[in-house]
Amino acid sequence: MYRLGEKVSMHLFGKSHAPCVGCILEGIPAGLEATDEYMASEMSFRKPSDGIGTPRKEADKVVFESGMKDGRTDGGPILITIGNVNRDSSSYSGYDRTPRPGHADLPALMKFPGYDIRGGGQFSGRMTAPIVAAGAIAKLMLSEKGIRTAAFARSIGGVSDGLDRDIDLAMSSRAFRTRACSGDLDRRMADEIMSVSSDGDSVGGTVECITDGLPVGFGGIWFEALDSEIARAVFSIPAVKGVEFGKGFGLTSMRGTESNDPFTVKDGKIRTVTNNMGGILGGMSTGMPMVFRAAFKPTPSIASEQRTVDIEKMEDTTISVAGRHDPCIVPRAVAVVEAVTALVVADQMSR
Amino acid sequence: MYRLGEKVSMHLFGKSHAPCVGCILEGIPAGLEATDEYMASEMSFRKPSDGIGTPRKEADKVVFESGMKDGRTDGGPILITIGNVNRDSSSYSGYDRTPRPGHADLPALMKFPGYDIRGGGQFSGRMTAPIVAAGAIAKLMLSEKGIRTAAFARSIGGVSDGLDRDIDLAMSSRAFRTRACSGDLDRRMADEIMSVSSDGDSVGGTVECITDGLPVGFGGIWFEALDSEIARAVFSIPAVKGVEFGKGFGLTSMRGTESNDPFTVKDGKIRTVTNNMGGILGGMSTGMPMVFRAAFKPTPSIASEQRTVDIEKMEDTTISVAGRHDPCIVPRAVAVVEAVTALVVADQMSR
Amino acid sequence: MYRLGEKVSMHLFGKSHAPCVGCILEGIPAGLEATDEYMASEMSFRKPSDGIGTPRKEADKVVFESGMKDGRTDGGPILITIGNVNRDSSSYSGYDRTPRPGHADLPALMKFPGYDIRGGGQFSGRMTAPIVAAGAIAKLMLSEKGIRTAAFARSIGGVSDGLDRDIDLAMSSRAFRTRACSGDLDRRMADEIMSVSSDGDSVGGTVECITDGLPVGFGGIWFEALDSEIARAVFSIPAVKGVEFGKGFGLTSMRGTESNDPFTVKDGKIRTVTNNMGGILGGMSTGMPMVFRAAFKPTPSIASEQRTVDIEKMEDTTISVAGRHDPCIVPRAVAVVEAVTALVVADQMSR
Amino acid sequence: MYRLGEKVSMHLFGKSHAPCVGCILEGIPAGLEATDEYMASEMSFRKPSDGIGTPRKEADKVVFESGMKDGRTDGGPILITIGNVNRDSSSYSGYDRTPRPGHADLPALMKFPGYDIRGGGQFSGRMTAPIVAAGAIAKLMLSEKGIRTAAFARSIGGVSDGLDRDIDLAMSSRAFRTRACSGDLDRRMADEIMSVSSDGDSVGGTVECITDGLPVGFGGIWFEALDSEIARAVFSIPAVKGVEFGKGFGLTSMRGTESNDPFTVKDGKIRTVTNNMGGILGGMSTGMPMVFRAAFKPTPSIASEQRTVDIEKMEDTTISVAGRHDPCIVPRAVAVVEAVTALVVADQMSR
Repeated sequence: MYRLGEKVSMHLFGKSHAPCVGCILEGIPAGLEATDEYMASEMSFRKPSDGIGTPRKEADKVVFESGMKDGRTDGGPILITIGNVNRDSSSYSGYDRTPRPGHADLPALMKFPGYDIRGGGQFSGRMTAPIVAAGAIAKLMLSEKGIRTAAFARSIGGVSDGLDRDIDLAMSSRAFRTRACSGDLDRRMADEIMSVSSDGDSVGGTVECITDGLPVGFGGIWFEALDSEIARAVFSIPAVKGVEFGKGFGLTSMRGTESNDPFTVKDGKIRTVTNNMGGILGGMSTGMPMVFRAAFKPTPSIASEQRTVDIEKMEDTTISVAGRHDPCIVPRAVAVVEAVTALVVADQMSR
Repeated sequence: MYRLGEKVSMHLFGKSHAPCVGCILEGIPAGLEATDEYMASEMSFRKPSDGIGTPRKEADKVVFESGMKDGRTDGGPILITIGNVNRDSSSYSGYDRTPRPGHADLPALMKFPGYDIRGGGQFSGRMTAPIVAAGAIAKLMLSEKGIRTAAFARSIGGVSDGLDRDIDLAMSSRAFRTRACSGDLDRRMADEIMSVSSDGDSVGGTVECITDGLPVGFGGIWFEALDSEIARAVFSIPAVKGVEFGKGFGLTSMRGTESNDPFTVKDGKIRTVTNNMGGILGGMSTGMPMVFRAAFKPTPSIASEQRTVDIEKMEDTTISVAGRHDPCIVPRAVAVVEAVTALVVADQMSR
Repeated sequence: MYRLGEKVSMHLFGKSHAPCVGCILEGIPAGLEATDEYMASEMSFRKPSDGIGTPRKEADKVVFESGMKDGRTDGGPILITIGNVNRDSSSYSGYDRTPRPGHADLPALMKFPGYDIRGGGQFSGRMTAPIVAAGAIAKLMLSEKGIRTAAFARSIGGVSDGLDRDIDLAMSSRAFRTRACSGDLDRRMADEIMSVSSDGDSVGGTVECITDGLPVGFGGIWFEALDSEIARAVFSIPAVKGVEFGKGFGLTSMRGTESNDPFTVKDGKIRTVTNNMGGILGGMSTGMPMVFRAAFKPTPSIASEQRTVDIEKMEDTTISVAGRHDPCIVPRAVAVVEAVTALVVADQMSR
Repeated sequence: MYRLGEKVSMHLFGKSHAPCVGCILEGIPAGLEATDEYMASEMSFRKPSDGIGTPRKEADKVVFESGMKDGRTDGGPILITIGNVNRDSSSYSGYDRTPRPGHADLPALMKFPGYDIRGGGQFSGRMTAPIVAAGAIAKLMLSEKGIRTAAFARSIGGVSDGLDRDIDLAMSSRAFRTRACSGDLDRRMADEIMSVSSDGDSVGGTVECITDGLPVGFGGIWFEALDSEIARAVFSIPAVKGVEFGKGFGLTSMRGTESNDPFTVKDGKIRTVTNNMGGILGGMSTGMPMVFRAAFKPTPSIASEQRTVDIEKMEDTTISVAGRHDPCIVPRAVAVVEAVTALVVADQMSR
């Protein structure tokens, strides 16, 4: 299913090596201004940076074929298309016979006979471009309610950011290639990426996302819980293998006296002293910043030789994945995590 | 929203201090045999164990008021009710004024004015009883397709099970009070629980769930991905703060050459040498066991004094939560994690 | 699928010859008062009347097993059960071999092998009892917004009410056995029913439903249109074969100069001079009363001998349907049409 | 909501005076061949015919921007766009102040402040072009299962086709301008249209749709009933005011002995002697052709002067609607009714 959301819904289409990718975004109110500059700026955060990303260069020009009037949303469904100008499928031949380890090739071939494996087909990270575009529109909705969301690189391989970050620092990460929160971390993370890259290898990392301005009680209960819906959306991003809110897995070895966030009155408002719960209790916002982290696995496509099987002969063989691949997906995934978060929050806001 | 699933759907009702809790379970085929013994056995795994659980004793007798005929499902919606025989709301008064840290009290009061806070109302862990009953029916569906799912306690507080476990070992955990995989771990985990309990404190832990027998390609893509839907359902269980598949957050510091699971041919089938991905690629099953872990926070209700606020006076105060509470929710949560997994798999199987 | 609605949703369960029928009703706000007297009164309009209805007598006592507190809704899911006290399945044997003409027996047997045919199983009109109970709660929601809905018998067999009716007259129909709008029509319709009944035959009729108080623009567009959603719900009532809004099929032979309802200003509000459109334009309310009619076929169960087939022998045979059946369903269907209308309007109101 | 369907789903976008209209169609299996000739042929049945339709001429060239590979569906979402080459919004100014009788102008202005009223905005019949294109793809799915669907003009104004028609005759209606089933009816219907047109007036009519090849038991029960879902979709077509299956409203004055369709064995299959029920019992197919009729109101846009109100001054005034309008929508609506029927059947087939 290519659709996310109920009232604010995004419906993806396209694939990596088709003429375009895109989505329909429905449920957006009229009157929001989405200038070309704004869209280009938002799309730029998903682009690979020099030296640490794939050499595949896409213009990623967002075209609104419907739903906009004079640069503003018109209240109808918004059709977003983004051209695939830089297609090169020559290096993909053969993976329908020798599936790439860590890729969806094998299950996709079993589930969808005749599956177009070039560039990952419908599973490609390329599909995240329209997600970022849709998220940019969703952010305009949030902005009108004083809600901001921003993500950053919490860790890349062995380099981890150990400090607590707030949304302003998260936003400042946009200035750095790796989307780290400081110049020093950025350098160290970039070094980590270039080091694995030169080994013909790849590396994973962690994206953290902070959303503030949510009113107390925002969200839903049981299967409509805010954290449930965000987790579902984030796990749908390719390469995500874990999601945790607040201290997350760190809570499993804590005691209640440590983990419970005490309430206090501050400036006439009820706040918590700590935010171990990541701003969520019972599926709803506590009014504190919502904080979660997503675990990204190392990019599966690597130049190093790996074991795989020859499906026709049913025997073991090896492959080395050529083509254009980011050695670490985290710097570009930051924008995607932000986007799905904005979409889920906008959707819940509209119910 | 109290509903989970599309084709196999569960719709919860009731609350902790009402006469009963229950659910409607729809989409179950006719002819599945659910004996009283089977249901009682499944429900028993959610019950508190002597010494390490809450003294609240519930019979948890499952009554099928509709959808069964001669002990077998009749193809129609199944109405499950479970009486709340052991209600005691006396100790809950006051939390609408001084919200309990770590509980949904504060956001619930803001979102639902007039919210019935006794026993957590609709947010109570008591609501997980019908989830376990529904999951027991879903497991009968899976069983017919050779699919098994079983969870166990991976860690409780500082005691962690460091070994790889398969589904047979996971199933054997039912013999132990804490749902650990061995008698030694069970003793150490039980000690941990009793130790924190005697301190008037609580502790968190990790539940791991293994599902085998899924065919290659089982699941869906993008927002219908198997891991996405499981994550959504698991995050809806009270006290869950994190979900990870395979090596999960451990993958973030790995390299692709380590993390990619190499394919190999074994006994005429394609398998992976390792299972770092937890049996999921691109939202679909690789044919290897599906493995995920859920992080549970320490039980928020503790006897120790904690800081909170008096909502009427808008000033800081303290509370100590009396009443019946498990010092660690993990042993009972094992059954709930299993149940939602079975429900999601049964639902995807029916699409 | 036994579920109707998104935000205000009703989920049916049970069947005619099971211990009970019922539903879960979700999305109802807290604080609505549903007294036993109110519920009993609403249920009474679905009961057969002396002389013109089936001799099957059901107490139809509505039991709220969850979702109510001190006689008021508590904001959680409402579990409604209604006992089947007067079961008699003896007369139903054999229809799995010789399907009854006009009944769902044949397609149900093909679709659901092993289908429990007694009393129509899940297809029975008995399932409309919980619909009426749920509709009674939905009406309480509408009432708070000044919205009223009422249905009446527009025609029974050859007796048709030729006058325009408003909601007050529609409501007055409750005083009459047949739910006609006047004593004279009631007598003539009752005579019609008794006449066909004495022939061992049955007869169809038309229910009209009027809803007023809807604000201009209430509803949705395209596939969420108010008339679309009402039509879907009304067609789900057993025996409905047609739905028309305003002049409906009468419009097909009219000209635009006649059919277009001219706008005019009256008492400072925009009204239409006529209401040929039944208060709906473009899927939304015009602010005029919403008016639609549902066509009910004659009750298929009749004592007269009819042609059918013997499924085992695959040869023609005949049957005569014994058991308890209304010779005309219209008087009792009036309450059901009202109920689904209230449920759809309440649902759209909540989006 | 612009989305219809669950598994086979269509999501509309665009509006009458935007650069294009279109839809995403999801859930279509790979491998269906949709040639340019086929699509052009299907689209041609929605085009106005010389003399009896609007002079607005659209090329209605269907462009597949995604989801097709070498002229066949690729299993992914299909993006359909259709350019609006012949836009002329000059004649639409003013209707936001003096709403057109019979149009959605008034409720749309109240519901969507700032609504773009030109050409009916999102409510325009222009939006039915992508519906027809999507329906053409859905028909390819049905065709593989031996299911055919075809609609025709049953009546236009005072001219009505009184004969029983089967699907072959329904298909033959494509040869006639008015989509009548015979040359004689076509001439008389065309005369009717030209006559009202010369009066500056418009006229309504009835579209009948026949679907054969549905297996016994095809469909669903209660709120997923085949007739319920078709009624919902058909009522979403602009100008539809009624839907009836089989004899429909004619059943309301019949007796059970007449209306019940007797079963008989014919050529080794169970058939009904008559088809008063339109092939549907209990929401499922009886195996007989599914037959329903949709009532279309007269086109609301007419040149004749009509009463309306001036919203700003809140006083009565008059208007005469200029611009390009069909005096009768029926000939073009035939293709739209067929398309939504195919989409609903394809969706239910995929569940």
